[in-house]
Amino acid sequence: MPLLLGAAGQGDVARFFTLLAVMLVAAKIAAELFERLGQPAVLGELVAGILLGASALRVIPTGSADSLTPVFHLLAEVGVVVLLFEIGLATDLRALLRVGPAATAVAAVGLALPFVLGFLYWRSGWHASEPTAADPLTTAVFVGATLTATSVGITARVLNDLHVLESLEARLVLGAAVIDDVLGLVILSVVSALAAGAAFTLPGALRVLAVAVAFLVAALAIGVRFAPRIFALVDQLRVRGMVLVTAFAFLLVMCALAERAGTAFIIGAFAAGLILAETRQAALIEERIRPVADIFTPLFFLSVGAAVDLRAWNPLVPENRSTLTIAGVLLAIALIGKFVSGWAAPWRRFNRAAVGVGMAPRGEVGLIFAQIGLAAGILSTRLFGVMLLVVVATTLVTPPLLQWTLRRGATPDESPAA
Amino acid sequence: MPLLLGAAGQGDVARFFTLLAVMLVAAKIAAELFERLGQPAVLGELVAGILLGASALRVIPTGSADSLTPVFHLLAEVGVVVLLFEIGLATDLRALLRVGPAATAVAAVGLALPFVLGFLYWRSGWHASEPTAADPLTTAVFVGATLTATSVGITARVLNDLHVLESLEARLVLGAAVIDDVLGLVILSVVSALAAGAAFTLPGALRVLAVAVAFLVAALAIGVRFAPRIFALVDQLRVRGMVLVTAFAFLLVMCALAERAGTAFIIGAFAAGLILAETRQAALIEERIRPVADIFTPLFFLSVGAAVDLRAWNPLVPENRSTLTIAGVLLAIALIGKFVSGWAAPWRRFNRAAVGVGMAPRGEVGLIFAQIGLAAGILSTRLFGVMLLVVVATTLVTPPLLQWTLRRGATPDESPAA
Repeated sequence: MPLLLGAAGQGDVARFFTLLAVMLVAAKIAAELFERLGQPAVLGELVAGILLGASALRVIPTGSADSLTPVFHLLAEVGVVVLLFEIGLATDLRALLRVGPAATAVAAVGLALPFVLGFLYWRSGWHASEPTAADPLTTAVFVGATLTATSVGITARVLNDLHVLESLEARLVLGAAVIDDVLGLVILSVVSALAAGAAFTLPGALRVLAVAVAFLVAALAIGVRFAPRIFALVDQLRVRGMVLVTAFAFLLVMCALAERAGTAFIIGAFAAGLILAETRQAALIEERIRPVADIFTPLFFLSVGAAVDLRAWNPLVPENRSTLTIAGVLLAIALIGKFVSGWAAPWRRFNRAAVGVGMAPRGEVGLIFAQIGLAAGILSTRLFGVMLLVVVATTLVTPPLLQWTLRRGATPDESPAA
Repeated sequence: MPLLLGAAGQGDVARFFTLLAVMLVAAKIAAELFERLGQPAVLGELVAGILLGASALRVIPTGSADSLTPVFHLLAEVGVVVLLFEIGLATDLRALLRVGPAATAVAAVGLALPFVLGFLYWRSGWHASEPTAADPLTTAVFVGATLTATSVGITARVLNDLHVLESLEARLVLGAAVIDDVLGLVILSVVSALAAGAAFTLPGALRVLAVAVAFLVAALAIGVRFAPRIFALVDQLRVRGMVLVTAFAFLLVMCALAERAGTAFIIGAFAAGLILAETRQAALIEERIRPVADIFTPLFFLSVGAAVDLRAWNPLVPENRSTLTIAGVLLAIALIGKFVSGWAAPWRRFNRAAVGVGMAPRGEVGLIFAQIGLAAGILSTRLFGVMLLVVVATTLVTPPLLQWTLRRGATPDESPAA
């Protein structure tokens, strides 16, 4: 009966509240189940999205006829931006620079190989045709790009469980994964320009890359100087929630600025996190943004999952077999590309196979790429489903493979726990 | 350039982010200014809303043509519901029962008098005509109801500043204000039914009252038994954000249930807070919901302020004078009604004038009433502006009056600091 709203009707409010509650609870229950199975929580949220999505229970509003669809889309957008902000906040730029050339080499090879192999596979025509609205070159770039970024959460947990988080291998993987994220986001800027309708040309791609790098560098140079002053001022204010609201508004403004500068939102969000990590209030901001992320971020992964067409994964339907074959080949490319990166670092005494396997899991950034490709019509719904299947599979195979390579490599002479 | 969204365009996302940042920063700056002037922060958020609203800077989307209007409306709705949840969480039901008959008497008189006087004034016809879409009886009920609930924040701060927060007077005012909130919310259920289109009849009002009371009692009886078990389970889960998400989803579900039961959302939100206050995780929930409230609650007060037509407050325009006269009379009623409540408690030795003045400030609940009335067409835009002016004025006059009455009453024999 309450009528707080003029524009949206009262029924809409009740439905919005109910949907929001159902989506969040489903995401958290699935996340908990996946964690207990030794898998990352984010995969659980993705699976909850698939189950609540258009091809299964149809709980999450996706149709353009539903007035709540744009609302949940905007909230999911806040979710992904808060996620990247948190990643930026947790990134220690100085430590990153210290990991040095070894991690950078691993990151560069582990980024380039899956990209090139994925791109070439898609250009080769050795796969069943998957028509999309975009030109095939653009689609090939997207297929390659989605395979690039390592998500190191699952590797970190396996390494932690085996008590080798302080090993050289672990530091290499963790360092490379962060560099990988930064490079991946730069690739994202090119990919976003493609999504916005630009045709793929090398000079065009280089220009967009330059804009993204320039934005990151300029934002960091200016931000790191001024943000601590702003927060020193904010510290003197009395009103409750001032630090959080300032940080959150800073994040939103950086996203809008990144878009204005011609690069991706996500880059602005990541830059905002990197900058605020340098303020004295960083720990407080991290603590206060957490609950906000807990509410918003699942909405992003739910929306990604909701876009999957489950029926395309059914191997009993003959026409799906070609799709699943594509998924298999891309999975092999995704695994081999990262595995080889273990041999990229220029010195000898570490377990190269463990590093290569540790780099394998894909996650948040890959999902963001796939989502952008789908929304822009560059990936068909089927191909989007394939990319998600590959992202999920890379994390499923990592824990057993990593344990095996670590045990095999742990000879007394070159113990990874050194 | 990023295109994470299909339904809402990319421009919409950038505009949404920018607006959200501007609104939150404006609200917090205004809140800070008001705090420094010894006024409640919420008034600052209200004033920021007026300035950013339809009649001044036109920053906040209000028109039905703007695709972001329903989005901000829904977020404001989350804001008010989280606010009432926090109030519920902070309410100590057992302590309330201990304050006993004195506070209850003060609350009852302080609630009944402004309501009856406001209602009679509006029924009397001794005011300039303010035509509304609803029948005059319903409008009179709304005018009375908006004047009922004390918002004790400002009184608590003045008492704290004067170091008399432990006095009998302070405990009376604080206790009465909480009882007042509960009774006010019950009145809100009647008022919501009117807003939903029911005509005002005494049996109808009593039925709605009975439903609201029955919902509160049933929700508390069932909830207090089961909520601790649910949270004991949640405590064993590993996924991050589990307690917050469970509490937030519980809040949303309680709101939807309240609406289903035929009473107001807000009652469900308040009941959810009261119930979770009884769990072992109450302090943790309070800590985690704070950042969420810091983001959402200002959006509610901004939206209330945005609905004010500033031009109707300009005394230089002759036709506004009758409106401002109405505001003056209602302010007098609001102040006298609460002042008399100081004499309602059945024993002698306390500063009755200080209690009466301490009960004067109105706040959040009054604003919610006015907003519901406006959305339902029961209050005209002008009358809505009048009610807001009265709410604001009651808090402006309280600090000096309260200091004066406390000093005058503080004879050695009956020191309020006893």
